[in-house]
This record gives sequence, structure tokens and C-alpha cells, in this order.
Amino acid sequence: MLKLYHHPFSPASRFARLMLSEHECKVEFVVERPWDRRADFMHMNPAGTVPLMTENDGPPLVGAPVIMEYLDETRGYAMADRRLMPNHPDARAEMRRLVDWFGHKFHDEVTGYFVHERIFKLEIPTSRGGGAPDSAILRAARTNIRHHLRYIGWLAGTRNWLAGDRITYADLAAAAELSAIDYLGEVPWDEDAHATAWYARVKSRPAFRSLLADKVPGLPASATYADLDF
Amino acid sequence: MLKLYHHPFSPASRFARLMLSEHECKVEFVVERPWDRRADFMHMNPAGTVPLMTENDGPPLVGAPVIMEYLDETRGYAMADRRLMPNHPDARAEMRRLVDWFGHKFHDEVTGYFVHERIFKLEIPTSRGGGAPDSAILRAARTNIRHHLRYIGWLAGTRNWLAGDRITYADLAAAAELSAIDYLGEVPWDEDAHATAWYARVKSRPAFRSLLADKVPGLPASATYADLDF
Repeated sequence: MLKLYHHPFSPASRFARLMLSEHECKVEFVVERPWDRRADFMHMNPAGTVPLMTENDGPPLVGAPVIMEYLDETRGYAMADRRLMPNHPDARAEMRRLVDWFGHKFHDEVTGYFVHERIFKLEIPTSRGGGAPDSAILRAARTNIRHHLRYIGWLAGTRNWLAGDRITYADLAAAAELSAIDYLGEVPWDEDAHATAWYARVKSRPAFRSLLADKVPGLPASATYADLDF
Repeated sequence: MLKLYHHPFSPASRFARLMLSEHECKVEFVVERPWDRRADFMHMNPAGTVPLMTENDGPPLVGAPVIMEYLDETRGYAMADRRLMPNHPDARAEMRRLVDWFGHKFHDEVTGYFVHERIFKLEIPTSRGGGAPDSAILRAARTNIRHHLRYIGWLAGTRNWLAGDRITYADLAAAAELSAIDYLGEVPWDEDAHATAWYARVKSRPAFRSLLADKVPGLPASATYADLDF
């Protein structure tokens, strides 16, 4: 049995959930709030980050990219022509570059700021840095997202999917990051038609449904969040 | 033919050089100074980071973890019992966790600070942020390294190599990060005997030789840098 420790609005956790759903895996979900630094969890992952997955109470699989490689190694073959990892080493490299781009660069410059300031700080105790969002940080993130959205639009406009002509883990990684801040209405969709059309295609996949049902207590989703024809 | 765009003191570049050397690959090296943001390089990698590798003028392979997977996919089998990627998916996951740990967490909390403040800022024009190191940042890095060295010591003391009983890419990733700051004399080796004994083993590998010959103009290496019996 697979077990996923995650937070509903951690973009990397959402990436893991999308992968598991595309693989049609049965999963037990455990919500973990990383800022609690729960001892048993820190023991499994000294970095204290989500997502973390185990299979049959085996060793911890730490982080979305590690989970991605594990799922492909253990279940990729069974996906046949729906496999999310390209076959050619060059294409795999491009896909992995994008997974890293969205999980680190896009996250560090855009989504990480929004999610931390606008969602996590509602839950984090004031004594540990919770509280009102920092408007200077939100302003920076709102500037940065425009450049990133243009890059996503360029990728989606010159290829069919972000890493090539078929859907791969890279699309899930990007859509996971975007979905967390789409909830907040922080994606200026009208600025790039290619990016918007690509996101609508990913969002309409059955794997996406559980994400669209997530809610932050006291903070309603943006009007377009769960709308497949936004 | 393989071509590596790198900087001699970028820890991730050093990790790529160690991997290529362990794989006994013939490589053409191109020194890239990321802060120049050279147009042709930015075109290959919009993140502007090193290392970047190409094979036979093919598409860019961006970043040390992507290069690692590519080398294992294209040349791992030929390594036979010297293969640097474990066979079991669980063991691969643990190795990848550590590669990510050293390339991101250790780098962001320790080596990135030292290398940027004490080496890169010598080369970066003042107009782009070069100049004297920030002593507050160095102080933070000197505090952080002690926790990380203890973790390395714990791994090396409870396993034979960092990710298990055989040498893997994780050892090269960790040693590459450490080597860049060992040049600066910033590793308190006397604090952890297990970490020190493990590093001496990695450092004595033939693959390490070219790193030990690197020099920063005007900044001599620490006394122990090239000493295999430090």
C-alpha cells in the first residue's frame, strides 16, 4: 500500500497527487503540516518537507522528483502508451529539466511566495512566523509570474505539451504549481492564450479532480478555480 | 563528443566533472561565467546556470541531476559493478534524495554562500554585485556547516558510503560541494571523524585529481586542499 504525507496546498504535494492519480494508484493520504516539525516525520525526512511517500511501510521516498522516478521505475511499464516519462534519454533530460524548473525556479520565484504568504501563514502559529502576508513579497511574486507565464506560453505554443508532443510529468509539475495559486486568483490568465489553453487541457484531466475540491478554511477559491471552461 | 559548460568552483559543475571522470568519458570543457549571462548560453539554458552538457551537439542537458540520469541511462550498463546508480528502486530513491539534499539544501545553507561570497564575488564586476564578502552571510554559513557535517558523519558512520554499502552518485554530489569550500579552508574537519574519513576516501579517487589542480587567481588553496592524507 502506498502512503503519501502531503499538504493540500503544497505545490510539490499536488504534483505527487497528480502523478499518483494518473498512475491510478490506491493511496492512503496523511496531511502533514511541515511547520509542526513532528518528530516522527522529521525522523523519516530530516529536511522536514512534503511530499513524502512510502510503499508497504518501506523506506521514505522524499520529494516529488524522487517519487516521480520511483513511480516510473516501478509502474511506468504498465502505463504502456500513457507513460509519463519519454523514451529517449534526450527527451527525458528535457522533461527532468522542466520538472526541476517548476519545482525550484518557478516555485522559488512565484508559487512558494504566494502559498507561504497567503495560505500557510494563516495556519502557522504567530510564534513561528505566521500572520498577515508581506505585501512587498506578494508584489515581487506578481511581477515574476508574468515572465514565467510567458515562458510557459512559449513552451506550450511551440510544442504540443510542455516537454514535447506528449503529456509528461513536466506538465503535471507545472500545473501543480499553478493550481495552488490559481486557487488564490493569482494567475493573470488573460496575458497568455497558449498558457491558458494548455492549462485548461491539463485541468480537465480526471486526475485533477481531487485538487479542485481542496479548500482553505476561511478563504474561498477564485471564481475560475474549479471551472473547467474558465 | 561530450561538451561540458562549467565553472571550476561551481559545486554542481564539480559534481558533473566527477561523474564524467568516473565514467571515463572524453569531454571538451568550456568555462562559463553564469553572471555574464552570455546570450548563446542563455538560449541553451534560460535559467543561466551551470553545468550544462551536450552530446554530439545535441539538445542541452541542464543541471547536474539531469546529467546524472543521462549518464546512467546511456552509460550505466557499461560500468558493470562500478555502476554509480543502485539497482533497487528504494536504494535509487535514497541516493536521489541525497543528491537533492547536497545540491539544494546543503548548497543553499552552506556551500552556495561560501563560494558566492569568497570566490565568485572576486570575479563578478562590482556593478553586478561583486566585491568584498558579506561577513554576516559567512557567519551564518559557518554555523550551518557544523550541523551538516554532523549529518554527513552520521551517514558515513552508519553506512559504508553515504547512500549505502557502495559508492554512488550521492558521494560524488556531497564531495563536490565540500571540495569547493575545502579549497577555502571552510570545513571544520576536526569536528567529525566519520565525515573526514569518508571524504578522504572519495578525495583519493583518480576522478578527483583534476579538481585538486583548480586554482582561484590570487587566492591560494588551504593547506589541506590537495593533501590526500589531511
